[in-house]
Amino acid sequence: MTILVTNDDGIHAPGLEALYLELQRLGEVTVVAPESEQSAVGHAISLMNPLRVKKVTFAGGVEGWAVGGTPADCVKIAIAELLPRPPELVVSGINLGPNVGINVLYSGTVSAATEAAILGIRAMAVSLNTYKSDTDFSQAAALAREVLARMQGWGGWSNGVVLNVNLPALPRNQIRGIRVTRQDTGPLVEHFERRVDPREHVYYWLAEINNRRDPDPDTDYGALQAGYISVTPIHYDLTHYASLDALKSQDWR
Amino acid sequence: MTILVTNDDGIHAPGLEALYLELQRLGEVTVVAPESEQSAVGHAISLMNPLRVKKVTFAGGVEGWAVGGTPADCVKIAIAELLPRPPELVVSGINLGPNVGINVLYSGTVSAATEAAILGIRAMAVSLNTYKSDTDFSQAAALAREVLARMQGWGGWSNGVVLNVNLPALPRNQIRGIRVTRQDTGPLVEHFERRVDPREHVYYWLAEINNRRDPDPDTDYGALQAGYISVTPIHYDLTHYASLDALKSQDWR
Repeated sequence: MTILVTNDDGIHAPGLEALYLELQRLGEVTVVAPESEQSAVGHAISLMNPLRVKKVTFAGGVEGWAVGGTPADCVKIAIAELLPRPPELVVSGINLGPNVGINVLYSGTVSAATEAAILGIRAMAVSLNTYKSDTDFSQAAALAREVLARMQGWGGWSNGVVLNVNLPALPRNQIRGIRVTRQDTGPLVEHFERRVDPREHVYYWLAEINNRRDPDPDTDYGALQAGYISVTPIHYDLTHYASLDALKSQDWR
Repeated sequence: MTILVTNDDGIHAPGLEALYLELQRLGEVTVVAPESEQSAVGHAISLMNPLRVKKVTFAGGVEGWAVGGTPADCVKIAIAELLPRPPELVVSGINLGPNVGINVLYSGTVSAATEAAILGIRAMAVSLNTYKSDTDFSQAAALAREVLARMQGWGGWSNGVVLNVNLPALPRNQIRGIRVTRQDTGPLVEHFERRVDPREHVYYWLAEINNRRDPDPDTDYGALQAGYISVTPIHYDLTHYASLDALKSQDWR
């Protein structure tokens, strides 16, 4: 199996290294990832600026491609220019921090996987529920490989559907299993910190994004909070079909 | 009615000015828009960098807020910090260029409206089907106001649903009416131009993004191509429910 690995934390992120090492056991892995951290870029792509690509080594000597762009750019250029043929699978991650609920929309990790789905390639995004920068990703990577192997065995995974996987940052024996979930759509709790710079100019910093309390256990957020591995099938058709039907029943002449 | 107007082409874009002037006829309009052009930023938000906000004048003397961030940032900070109370409506645009099909995912214009929907506010994105930089937006703005007035009269528009409106760049008497559509999900046709800089380094530039030919007339792309105003209801729940049901029927213990 040919696998393209990318992320949004940049090619030198430990989450990517761990994922690369683990997925090597499943096939031939190529890494094409952003040169620098690209968190919360959403599904941004580079139109106004050119993309620069360079070969770099990571993980103590493995060769990969570093792209001066976004995660979605990496997938586009890997498939259009860098790989001899499209990969059979794209895996994005492992992200430092969960990508659940509304935050899925802001996530570069998920958008890279979505870009692959748009291009007709099976894709998975993997995120770990911790922000600790000294995190050891090796257990998470092993879990990601196991989840991937199980999902590959499931006959229903169509190429237009991304599996958004969120892993608890818990010892393995405390993880309660896999739960298939929907995206939580509950409101975010966030605020801006108002600060003043040394030249007396005001600036603002988005200080916190939290989903609501007592989340529904059938959602990505709720399942992760309850200690489950969350697997959410997502797609790139944003149409709200209930409203579409209601609107179509009106006379718009 | 209180209305927040934003865009992704920046606060000095003529499409925003025309929209502001037209929407003033419907209520009290505040403009909070990016300081500079933010095309194709998708649903990016600023986490690693602070946001700077300054009062500027546009449209020959109207006061608005320019934000050093993305379209989604503008909506967040307008509602959290700049406006005395949340607006009743957010309108994003008028974008120079259509936002249909897969490009909806890349669109800063649409993401600003989606951010409003996430925050529980009724929102519309408006785009014009031309890339000519000397475009006169006044007819498009008048059309946008009319479409908005008709949709406001429709009882089914819920706050979590964004109306993604695309306007033909045609003389008014050649526009064939309003069509309610779904998002086109056909593949993009795109390629990277490979170039060499003066220092002999290779770089790539995404050269073209086109949807497929002969599009389905029930889609945003197809309706716009056929000369209709396209209105697509979209939402921010990315869950693919068909796969969710199929996955849930499996045993994942």
